[in-house]
Amino acid sequence: MMKPAPRETILSLFSQTPGGFVSGERISAELGVSRTAVWKHIRSLRQAGYQIEAIPSRGYKLAKAPDVLMPESIQAGLGCRLVGSRVRCFDETDSTNLQACRLGDEGEVDGLVVIADRQSSGKGRMGRQWESPAGVNLYASILLRPSILPFEAPKLTFLSAVAVCRAINNCTGLQPTVKWPNDILLDGAKVAGLLNEMSSETDQVHYVVLGIGVNLNMHVDQFPADLRYPATSLAIMTRQPVSRLDFTRTLLQEIDVLYQIFLEQGSVPIMSAWTDLCDMTGKPVMVDCNEVQIEGTMTGLAEDGALLVRTKTGKIETVYAGDVRPASRGSQCFSS
Amino acid sequence: MMKPAPRETILSLFSQTPGGFVSGERISAELGVSRTAVWKHIRSLRQAGYQIEAIPSRGYKLAKAPDVLMPESIQAGLGCRLVGSRVRCFDETDSTNLQACRLGDEGEVDGLVVIADRQSSGKGRMGRQWESPAGVNLYASILLRPSILPFEAPKLTFLSAVAVCRAINNCTGLQPTVKWPNDILLDGAKVAGLLNEMSSETDQVHYVVLGIGVNLNMHVDQFPADLRYPATSLAIMTRQPVSRLDFTRTLLQEIDVLYQIFLEQGSVPIMSAWTDLCDMTGKPVMVDCNEVQIEGTMTGLAEDGALLVRTKTGKIETVYAGDVRPASRGSQCFSS
Repeated sequence: MMKPAPRETILSLFSQTPGGFVSGERISAELGVSRTAVWKHIRSLRQAGYQIEAIPSRGYKLAKAPDVLMPESIQAGLGCRLVGSRVRCFDETDSTNLQACRLGDEGEVDGLVVIADRQSSGKGRMGRQWESPAGVNLYASILLRPSILPFEAPKLTFLSAVAVCRAINNCTGLQPTVKWPNDILLDGAKVAGLLNEMSSETDQVHYVVLGIGVNLNMHVDQFPADLRYPATSLAIMTRQPVSRLDFTRTLLQEIDVLYQIFLEQGSVPIMSAWTDLCDMTGKPVMVDCNEVQIEGTMTGLAEDGALLVRTKTGKIETVYAGDVRPASRGSQCFSS
Repeated sequence: MMKPAPRETILSLFSQTPGGFVSGERISAELGVSRTAVWKHIRSLRQAGYQIEAIPSRGYKLAKAPDVLMPESIQAGLGCRLVGSRVRCFDETDSTNLQACRLGDEGEVDGLVVIADRQSSGKGRMGRQWESPAGVNLYASILLRPSILPFEAPKLTFLSAVAVCRAINNCTGLQPTVKWPNDILLDGAKVAGLLNEMSSETDQVHYVVLGIGVNLNMHVDQFPADLRYPATSLAIMTRQPVSRLDFTRTLLQEIDVLYQIFLEQGSVPIMSAWTDLCDMTGKPVMVDCNEVQIEGTMTGLAEDGALLVRTKTGKIETVYAGDVRPASRGSQCFSS
């Protein structure tokens, strides 16, 4: 593993003693540099927006970290086994997924995280546009290189979904739900979307990219007028801003934990956790599949991640691609 | 569709009147250029190695086409519905698959064919090396953009396999067999290998690349000494050189036909044709799957393309990745 940058080491020391002082001597020893060099690093952190107190004889204390997404602030004391092993932050990119795929093609490491402050061509599922204004939300893509067969990779969408729900719950106390296949909702409005992409050969996955967009601090007037679905953000729901840095770190930690479970135990516990977060299970739903509409009761997930819908004739339909929504009571012409 | 280049139009006119004369007047009319301009195009074709006779009052006749792979010679009168809609030929590239994937990422058209005279990093399945000397063989990759779900894409390997077998049979009369999942054999020696790659999201394929390497005119002393399997070439088997141009055109035509069947009828007829070409079905086989070896009788293909092997206890094992070979009689400890 690469040696961390000096600023990252200092931030990591602060994170190990929350609210406490870290002596200049200790920093000097950890970095293997002079006290003067330590002072220069502290100054550069202050210039980057960190509020750092300095008290002679006690040392340095981090009073406030700026809410900016930088590799060192994300990685400091993150404690992940794999996710975030490398972090690349862009002020702007076309799409973090495209960027992560390109880096994946070039051989970037397992666990790479790509984050952009703004996406010029943010994309949703099926090539749909994804609104990506600057500085308010999280646009992240995680590059993973699991030793799995290509047909198992789509199940990783459920992993991202569970991780996003847990991160939202940890950071805000809100209780999000999931909508098949790749949306996260709060009170029925979309707060996050997922777009997984894969490069593979017939019996080997080269890499999977977990693309995650979460509306954190977006205001009502920042949403485009012609959205297909109601949308919201964490700040709209909680009426206070969310720290992008805290949310990002929490999310990466949740993904890391779930990914270890996926590698060790497979997709069953992940899909089970997803099903627990889905409030449409057992309810009447309408699924738009290109030219066909399927109406019935959502009974759960098939082993391969497909949506199972029992129609009024009792037949179980297996849906691999489509948009699902709760069916209105009026259209419910069968008991479930 | 793009207007074909003048040289391609001329070659196409020759291919419509095999062995016959095409008048300068007709070429002039087809191209919408002067007779002097026609003469310049003929001269440039001659410079590219085409032997073209010219007889005043009768016109031009193609006596012999050079065995070089160029877009215009491949496309002239090809008659495909999709495959070869665009052809790009490289003297050398790292790997035609990598090249096709890059072009796929950049939005290149459905049906694109990438051909290289030589590959500097030719690759086989599971990242294995693929020997790619210059000028003797065929290294081709076909970019397809089918509207299918990701889990269906691996079945396209069977399509390539059937197309390669048919092209070999058409061009040489030889009867190749297939070996699961992606080899073509002649008398038990490998003559062609396939490597399909895919870029997809959870419920949509961006593109599939069919990578095809066929040993056409390779000599015995051009094979590396440490090959894992016996290998051969069409020229070794027939004791005469094979036209790379004829073989390439035949192969693209076979792929085009099979791909239309795949799009219209699905993978069942393709996998059935593959099974007919597989001489291991019903025979004792040994499968190396990473850390496990499975011995049994190959019973056929599962619906998803997996290999089915009945072990001596009668259990059917489903193999998604592995190397299969005929089991020696000595190791056959059960009747089948």
